[in-house]
Amino acid sequence: MIYIGNKSVMSYVLAVVTQFNNGFDEVLIKARGRAISRAVDTAEVVRNKFMPGVEVKDIKIGTEQIVGEGGDKANVSSLEITMKTK
Amino acid sequence: MIYIGNKSVMSYVLAVVTQFNNGFDEVLIKARGRAISRAVDTAEVVRNKFMPGVEVKDIKIGTEQIVGEGGDKANVSSLEITMKTK
Repeated sequence: MIYIGNKSVMSYVLAVVTQFNNGFDEVLIKARGRAISRAVDTAEVVRNKFMPGVEVKDIKIGTEQIVGEGGDKANVSSLEITMKTK
Repeated sequence: MIYIGNKSVMSYVLAVVTQFNNGFDEVLIKARGRAISRAVDTAEVVRNKFMPGVEVKDIKIGTEQIVGEGGDKANVSSLEITMKTK
């Protein structure tokens, strides 16, 4: 599983490519909030530029509750992209 | 089709709810680039807060080429969420 944070898209692309090259048939890319667009960028760059033999298997969206330091709660959207070898 | 731009999430939620209330069985939510996370927020708020009878039918990601004023090209990721009545 690759969790998308605030690093550059290319660093996550490298992480995904490395997992496939290490023999994984599937890699799950997960992001929350504003990192969601970066997760889509990562999947698209992997598929279009680096690994034509990999495709998107499934995409799911959801909502997670995050609890702040003061105990206050907020909802944040999440996105999961499962990529697999063809 | 609801195209997600820079307005508040709630304005897009209202647009989606209005389309369903006007008799559409399906509504397509589309976004590019950094608006992608707002598209996910919109779908999640519609489904969880306003319309429990609506579900996500399909999610697609893609890449579009945009051409700037000077003719320079750039790739941008896109996301399409199809929502439908259960």
